[in-house]
Amino acid sequence: MTDLQEALKSTAAAVTRQLDELLPQGAGPRGQVVEAMRYACLGGGKRLRPFLVVASARLFDVRDPRALRVAAAIEMVHCYSLVHDDLPAMDDSDLRRGKKTVHRKFDDATAILAGDGLLTEAFAVLSEPATHKDAEVRTELTRGLAAAAGARGMVGGQMIDISPERDDLDLDGVTQLQRLKTGALIAFSCEAGAILGRAPDAEREALRAYAGDLGLAFQIADDLLDAEGSSEELGKPTGQDAAAGKATFVNLMGPRRARERAQELVESASEHLDVFGDKADLLRQTARFVVTRRS
Amino acid sequence: MTDLQEALKSTAAAVTRQLDELLPQGAGPRGQVVEAMRYACLGGGKRLRPFLVVASARLFDVRDPRALRVAAAIEMVHCYSLVHDDLPAMDDSDLRRGKKTVHRKFDDATAILAGDGLLTEAFAVLSEPATHKDAEVRTELTRGLAAAAGARGMVGGQMIDISPERDDLDLDGVTQLQRLKTGALIAFSCEAGAILGRAPDAEREALRAYAGDLGLAFQIADDLLDAEGSSEELGKPTGQDAAAGKATFVNLMGPRRARERAQELVESASEHLDVFGDKADLLRQTARFVVTRRS
Repeated sequence: MTDLQEALKSTAAAVTRQLDELLPQGAGPRGQVVEAMRYACLGGGKRLRPFLVVASARLFDVRDPRALRVAAAIEMVHCYSLVHDDLPAMDDSDLRRGKKTVHRKFDDATAILAGDGLLTEAFAVLSEPATHKDAEVRTELTRGLAAAAGARGMVGGQMIDISPERDDLDLDGVTQLQRLKTGALIAFSCEAGAILGRAPDAEREALRAYAGDLGLAFQIADDLLDAEGSSEELGKPTGQDAAAGKATFVNLMGPRRARERAQELVESASEHLDVFGDKADLLRQTARFVVTRRS
Repeated sequence: MTDLQEALKSTAAAVTRQLDELLPQGAGPRGQVVEAMRYACLGGGKRLRPFLVVASARLFDVRDPRALRVAAAIEMVHCYSLVHDDLPAMDDSDLRRGKKTVHRKFDDATAILAGDGLLTEAFAVLSEPATHKDAEVRTELTRGLAAAAGARGMVGGQMIDISPERDDLDLDGVTQLQRLKTGALIAFSCEAGAILGRAPDAEREALRAYAGDLGLAFQIADDLLDAEGSSEELGKPTGQDAAAGKATFVNLMGPRRARERAQELVESASEHLDVFGDKADLLRQTARFVVTRRS
């Protein structure tokens, strides 16, 4: 196992423990929504965003336990977005991470509420003193997460993704869609490490540039996997974008150019980290990983 | 018009202007979610929660413009909850405040996203420095809102409301359901005024007790209106709880005892405000208003 694989695995385990702790079981008729929230969060996943928080925070000597609370909050937001996107009214997906989606395991109403509950809980976690003793830091984290997740970010991206205009987007349009839908939260994951570490502006800017390239590379790789990967490896259906006639990086650029572009982005992402020297090696490896992963 | 009617009307207008300012129009395919968020928030409503924020904040000499940002954030959360509750997967309502519900005006997917966007935007508003210069205050508002709105509050209450156990709740069960589903956000609306005004603990406790009684009185009145009011006056269907065989305050206590109980709660709510003297007259009138309103 490479250093990165080790680090990904141990962070994934740690953030799952953190989520388990932050989402305690509920009793009575209310219990079902908590059960669904836990089901949505504790069932695996690469935990890429949590890893980015932890790895970015380490650049500023922020210890993992502190970063893990923020990582868990961001993962809650990521999981809520999957739960809502999978609903019949949106992507109507039955399978996620190799398991039934939340609305298939429970029902649509519970899935809507579980998503709502996770989004809300993320802000609860960020605002608690245990996340950081300085309220300035906590409120900056809240502001950043809200900007990345809301209508100016992820929610806006999902709106574009389900809009009638979706199929006819050009490359700029698909890039903008990706920036909002997945890029904003990935970028905030890196930025959160910098906020926790009260990083100087220049280093924050470097991380932001890294995260921008990383997010785009990630999405191109996702499109390639959807076009070429197998459903077994991914734990969710593949070939859906092509079947739906959606404009993607792959069908707009062709698979060969898409792969080249992803590679260019990985190199550009790594260069942005020069200011951190060797300390940023894990983040450089992460950039390579997102374009070579099989799931 | 009474003082209270004047005050309700002018606060409703002010919070609508504030919401209009905080929810700017969006362009392009992303625009539809912003349009739906605005539709959900700008179409009227009593604005009871915003009024409670403003009136509570005045007790501590917090000026209205500051309170109005917080009031708007809480109203966004209230409106998001209505949008999601009205969805076909939940209450399946076509009419709200005399207009088409969001999913009827747009579609289910847009309604889900608009709710998500409003919930997220509420936290964005609270965390911005314009809300309060002290980050401690902002983060305390965030924490309070998240607790009131999430699975330990409103979302948990809605889960109970749609659970199979719902029809068989006894009076304690219905009271608990109401405390979570509507009481928690009403209570936080009063508490938010106290947080903004950095109120001493005793005054905060008094407001919390007032809000607890107010919220319960409000819900009993709601049940009475559902049982006895007209659909035209309410701008939404009535008689639904009885038709669905749901346990409510009215069918568990009978309408006469329910009316008495609401009146007792109004008196008890008012007494909790003694510590504030005449300054709290508007809040006392508000308690009377919630049980005498016709819609």
